[in-house]
Amino acid sequence: MRIAIDAMGGDHAPQEIVRGCLQASGHTEAELILVGDHQRITDELTQSGISYDPARIRIMHAQEVIENTDSPVRAVRGKPDSSMVRAIELVKSGEADAVLSAGNTGALMAAGLLRLGRIKGVERPAIVSIYPLIGQEKAFSLLVDAGANAECKASNLLGFAHMGSIYMKSAFGVESPTVGLINIGAEETKGTAQLKDTYQLLKTSGLNFIGNVEGRDIPGGAADVLVCDGFTGNVILKLTEGLAWTILKTIKRRFTEDVMAKLGAAILSGKLRDLKKEFDYSTYGGAPILGIRGLVFKMHGSSTADAVRNSVIKAALVASGDLTGQIRQAMEAYANGEEGTDPDEE
Amino acid sequence: MRIAIDAMGGDHAPQEIVRGCLQASGHTEAELILVGDHQRITDELTQSGISYDPARIRIMHAQEVIENTDSPVRAVRGKPDSSMVRAIELVKSGEADAVLSAGNTGALMAAGLLRLGRIKGVERPAIVSIYPLIGQEKAFSLLVDAGANAECKASNLLGFAHMGSIYMKSAFGVESPTVGLINIGAEETKGTAQLKDTYQLLKTSGLNFIGNVEGRDIPGGAADVLVCDGFTGNVILKLTEGLAWTILKTIKRRFTEDVMAKLGAAILSGKLRDLKKEFDYSTYGGAPILGIRGLVFKMHGSSTADAVRNSVIKAALVASGDLTGQIRQAMEAYANGEEGTDPDEE
Repeated sequence: MRIAIDAMGGDHAPQEIVRGCLQASGHTEAELILVGDHQRITDELTQSGISYDPARIRIMHAQEVIENTDSPVRAVRGKPDSSMVRAIELVKSGEADAVLSAGNTGALMAAGLLRLGRIKGVERPAIVSIYPLIGQEKAFSLLVDAGANAECKASNLLGFAHMGSIYMKSAFGVESPTVGLINIGAEETKGTAQLKDTYQLLKTSGLNFIGNVEGRDIPGGAADVLVCDGFTGNVILKLTEGLAWTILKTIKRRFTEDVMAKLGAAILSGKLRDLKKEFDYSTYGGAPILGIRGLVFKMHGSSTADAVRNSVIKAALVASGDLTGQIRQAMEAYANGEEGTDPDEE
Repeated sequence: MRIAIDAMGGDHAPQEIVRGCLQASGHTEAELILVGDHQRITDELTQSGISYDPARIRIMHAQEVIENTDSPVRAVRGKPDSSMVRAIELVKSGEADAVLSAGNTGALMAAGLLRLGRIKGVERPAIVSIYPLIGQEKAFSLLVDAGANAECKASNLLGFAHMGSIYMKSAFGVESPTVGLINIGAEETKGTAQLKDTYQLLKTSGLNFIGNVEGRDIPGGAADVLVCDGFTGNVILKLTEGLAWTILKTIKRRFTEDVMAKLGAAILSGKLRDLKKEFDYSTYGGAPILGIRGLVFKMHGSSTADAVRNSVIKAALVASGDLTGQIRQAMEAYANGEEGTDPDEE
């Protein structure tokens, strides 16, 4: 088992990426291939002060870096020696079983499509993200698409529902996961024309479709798989993250503004710590881009070493199964003659 | 000053609507006209046990009710004797200075357009909602559109930015309010084609545009006026409401699960109460639909008596100014020959 990591992608690269890999190395049998500037990665490995087995962590040099401001397709074509493209090519050549990056989402999607190709029957690959639930019976829902496709047709959304359901089953063992469509009303006549069409497609999809899910029902875990376009998914994830963080910070400030409050807070410190942990998105690791012929994981742009460690461990776990094969099988079953693409056909 | 209220619209109508009006009557000089089923409203007035001045609260009978499942335009045309349509007509005839409804949002928008008409220069009226901020220096941002227009062109969004800025200034006294565009990245190249176009329009609009605002920055009060399409706005508002509620419920449960925690919670009970109040959306009242030739306020569908009371008081306050006139003036200044509509032209 080998995992390729784009060491130069993300807000805290390469430092946090390298440290996360060092931490992960103690928890997985996988060999980790750090792709990026050789000198900078070596420096980070040395400066971390963490000892590691050089047979289990190795460096593959790449000259360039795709920036967040780069235009996705142009970047992938114009920077063939970038850490992201090189890391993805390791999956293509069979030298790695999965690839992870905290870099430019659009570029990661484009690189996956251009270098690995699309699974037959999949119109649009999508990012399947964990949506952590607070104080609910289930720990999370899956959100598809979490940011790869800003605009979507009804048939795209149907594909997302299929891929999300497959991932929920194969990675988390949930049989017949419930599927909800993010919308602005419960009735099937609500929302845009695309969403009304999607509702009808989902009704006859054979999936366990439970109807529309409104914003207010998301935090209660209304469905195992939440389907929406990537714009809405991105807003939902980031808003949840920002709001949970704001509320916790406010609670903390309020609970320490006078002596009595501090006493109460001291008694409740264990509870407060538990709550903070439930809010911590980094514990859930990266999100796979499904629909591509290979395992590509998108990590949060602001991933810290802890988040990278969890993402690497999770990726190794998923790579030990046959997620791509399962998606291929399921998507072909409902695809109506629509062909996949080989690399460089897009 | 007279305020018309659709007594039959909303999840808890007519009971909570009638009680909210009774409560408001003690806090405003305005005369309230309750529109809807005469018998049911009379019963609610009697059953409330609250004494009131019949000169200040009167009933106008309307036979029909527009339901949430009704198709907006068809409902407005097909149910001329509905409480919502009748209430709006009171504004048209000059018998009321403003109208409030907790009913079908699309129908309220359609009734406003069809009966009152559009202000010249306004392409699309929009709902301007309060987005409450928790633990921030400012108490709220304004969110436009909060649910009236699921899909929008760039020029529509520009209009929302103008109307939101005018409302922030005229209703809340904020000079040169900051305007942010809800998007999935900070860079001006992010998002859909419409949003890229909107970014360029806002840059040269003369408004105090501060750039894109991502989901995670919304709860921190990134801008005074947040601009987005009605689909995104609806998801943002409802998700925030649902998440805040879920987090508070979880805190409450955690803090009462053992004896020591209960002791800590008892000490902090005042702080917890304050927090809950900050989360309470009902304190902010209804949201105006701007761009219509008349003051129309949308109340939350699940409005309780408290929320209705606050909405009525706020509507009376806004109606005492000349919001519609200010919008007319400002929109005409930037409109390029685009004409408004008279009633029944839409």
